[in-house]
Amino acid sequence: MTMTKARSIASQCQAAYDVAPIIGALSTDAKNAGLVAMAQALKIHSAAILTANEKDLSYGRSAGISTALLDRLTLTPARIEGMADSLLAIRDLEDPIGEVLTAWTLENGLAISKVRVPFGVIGIIYEARPNVTADAIGLAIKSSNCVVLRGSKSAIHSNQIISNTLRDAFVSQGGPAGAIQLLEDTTHEGVTELVQMKQYLSLVIPRGGAGLIKRVVETATVPAIETGVGNCHVYVDQSADLKAAVSIAVNAKVQRPSVCNACETVLVHKDVASTLLPLLSTPLKESNVVIRGCEKTKVLLPDCELATEDDWYEEYHDLILAIRVVDSIDEALTHIRQYGSMHTEAILSENPEAISKFLNQVDAAAVIANASTRFTDGGVFGFGAEMGISTQKLHARGPMGLKELTTYKYIVKGDGQIRT
Amino acid sequence: MTMTKARSIASQCQAAYDVAPIIGALSTDAKNAGLVAMAQALKIHSAAILTANEKDLSYGRSAGISTALLDRLTLTPARIEGMADSLLAIRDLEDPIGEVLTAWTLENGLAISKVRVPFGVIGIIYEARPNVTADAIGLAIKSSNCVVLRGSKSAIHSNQIISNTLRDAFVSQGGPAGAIQLLEDTTHEGVTELVQMKQYLSLVIPRGGAGLIKRVVETATVPAIETGVGNCHVYVDQSADLKAAVSIAVNAKVQRPSVCNACETVLVHKDVASTLLPLLSTPLKESNVVIRGCEKTKVLLPDCELATEDDWYEEYHDLILAIRVVDSIDEALTHIRQYGSMHTEAILSENPEAISKFLNQVDAAAVIANASTRFTDGGVFGFGAEMGISTQKLHARGPMGLKELTTYKYIVKGDGQIRT
Repeated sequence: MTMTKARSIASQCQAAYDVAPIIGALSTDAKNAGLVAMAQALKIHSAAILTANEKDLSYGRSAGISTALLDRLTLTPARIEGMADSLLAIRDLEDPIGEVLTAWTLENGLAISKVRVPFGVIGIIYEARPNVTADAIGLAIKSSNCVVLRGSKSAIHSNQIISNTLRDAFVSQGGPAGAIQLLEDTTHEGVTELVQMKQYLSLVIPRGGAGLIKRVVETATVPAIETGVGNCHVYVDQSADLKAAVSIAVNAKVQRPSVCNACETVLVHKDVASTLLPLLSTPLKESNVVIRGCEKTKVLLPDCELATEDDWYEEYHDLILAIRVVDSIDEALTHIRQYGSMHTEAILSENPEAISKFLNQVDAAAVIANASTRFTDGGVFGFGAEMGISTQKLHARGPMGLKELTTYKYIVKGDGQIRT
Repeated sequence: MTMTKARSIASQCQAAYDVAPIIGALSTDAKNAGLVAMAQALKIHSAAILTANEKDLSYGRSAGISTALLDRLTLTPARIEGMADSLLAIRDLEDPIGEVLTAWTLENGLAISKVRVPFGVIGIIYEARPNVTADAIGLAIKSSNCVVLRGSKSAIHSNQIISNTLRDAFVSQGGPAGAIQLLEDTTHEGVTELVQMKQYLSLVIPRGGAGLIKRVVETATVPAIETGVGNCHVYVDQSADLKAAVSIAVNAKVQRPSVCNACETVLVHKDVASTLLPLLSTPLKESNVVIRGCEKTKVLLPDCELATEDDWYEEYHDLILAIRVVDSIDEALTHIRQYGSMHTEAILSENPEAISKFLNQVDAAAVIANASTRFTDGGVFGFGAEMGISTQKLHARGPMGLKELTTYKYIVKGDGQIRT
């Protein structure tokens, strides 16, 4: 890293804020031309990006960071190609800006329309993965927002070259350079400073672990969207198709255990526990999943570890699955209400009443009947791209695509009306 | 006031949280029956409510609170009738809950629908006016939310009898008593405690002065919607119909100066300043409006006070108007961007290009051409009722009606799908 003093967070946020009206007025064609140039530039500068990434990786290795973290930090020619493809996919998405959401005329002749507009400047705080840098820039530009990125220190060389490359490409197509800011200050305190930049930012989105989300929520004065903490459950009702239940539960745990829509706890109705649990344990064992069961589970699967209260709260991000036998669907609902993170909850059942009860009563971004929790995803839902999965209820819930990065304003046209 | 210890904020929030699933499942008919009973109960208990109100007023008088505050605190038979009518008007509004916002089916057969659902428990913090107690309860119940109200200490007797009356009426129609909570703790610290009740509340809405909003934003961990701070401008372009401009500017300032959509500063294009300002000052003087003008204004209206930098930031809530002469529409836009509160901004102009530029570029909840700023209002917009006017961009912007008190969830129905 260079020894020059990092630009202040305030100066970078202000630089973005100052050009927000310019970005807000860009045509769809101008934004798309920028995205195409960005995708091309990533490919052209692929070798330089890999060199910068190698610097981060060697720092990471000498600092002894985990293999999982190193993997998320690693770029390859294929991953860079993937980033470029994502930018082109964003180019192909419909421009959300300017959409008239509704319009009506009052009796006094005032014509009101509710029109989709950008936020202005969005702050995004994320960990390790350098591909988020490109995705976030692409989504921000397509939704006519400026973006202030706060990536992690461990990825600073990769993030810098990616954001510089994309910014230069955007500028080459006439875009304002200020619109894309990667914070030079990557201190811990800097996160708190960023989320209090109320005069410049209209929204912050933290993407990362529970600790980061908590810190942002506790210190932010800028409106924030909480993302990605997923303590997801699969409830196997007594009426479930048990063969399908095994397949779904295993898929929800094993297919990609590190992500937020993976299943952490399976709740099993007592009437099917003795049949289901042995069926379930075999493929779980084959996939090296450690089971932490409640006492009733332990009776049926003596090899499993005994779960503690803490396990019900845990988002393992790992090949560990908690299992609890419940007396009824109501007990499952109570468990989910107490321990769930309002991300994704699934019921497996052939009983329409039970399904309906579960789907109506569970308070989560996504409630699923008879399918894997892994489907809660912007790509799967057809949003084309995703800025994270919201687990709060304000503004956006669940996968956030381009529309979720916009707000609206009321445009009112009169001919002299006054209020009496 | 009684000497019994106030119930804790946590216990009241939890009581609401515990019945949120019950409120969430109420039918439209059940909610409407509750609202009708509430309206009737207000009328039946009118005398008792006035007696309780008189207690607040006499405390207020002996504490020497201002006439304006006393006025806002005062209930009359007509105002109680108005509160009852508002509840019936809310009864007549369409039930927002359960609306399918969009639905689609994936290639793998998963059927996804995005359905409008309540938040759960909403906290509302407000000042003085006891009629807000009834409005907030009505809007919350109709949108299937529980509500925790934190009114001001100065209105505690009025608020208590109103909330008790409405809760009893709701319970008489089968509603759960826990759904309607008026905080017994009205300490300052209690506000901070309330806005950190993340385990129970999904949303807080502060309604009041800039100080309250700021305190909530700085301490809340529950997602919050900022409301009501309105530093609204009227920009008179050089092409404006000056007669209409005078009428609109006067209306925007004078018709109800204490509200957030009143105009605080008029910006006048230099080419029309010498004609407009004398025309404008006469009716303003007749309405006892004090003018605080920039130096150029002072030259044209020698009687006016000289504005300071602070005036441009001020939301007077009073018969005071700042006036500034600007060289161009761009200078007006810059002024609004610097000093405005993103509430309502108006341009008066006969030039379509200037109008279009203003409406597109000004970043505010409502942008208005050739009409008074006073029109930004849930009632005027046709929302039937209003929980405040949002000045932030997340979730709701501008007037908040029933729909703005809801969120959504994704309901996904499958038949065994797993992710590959």
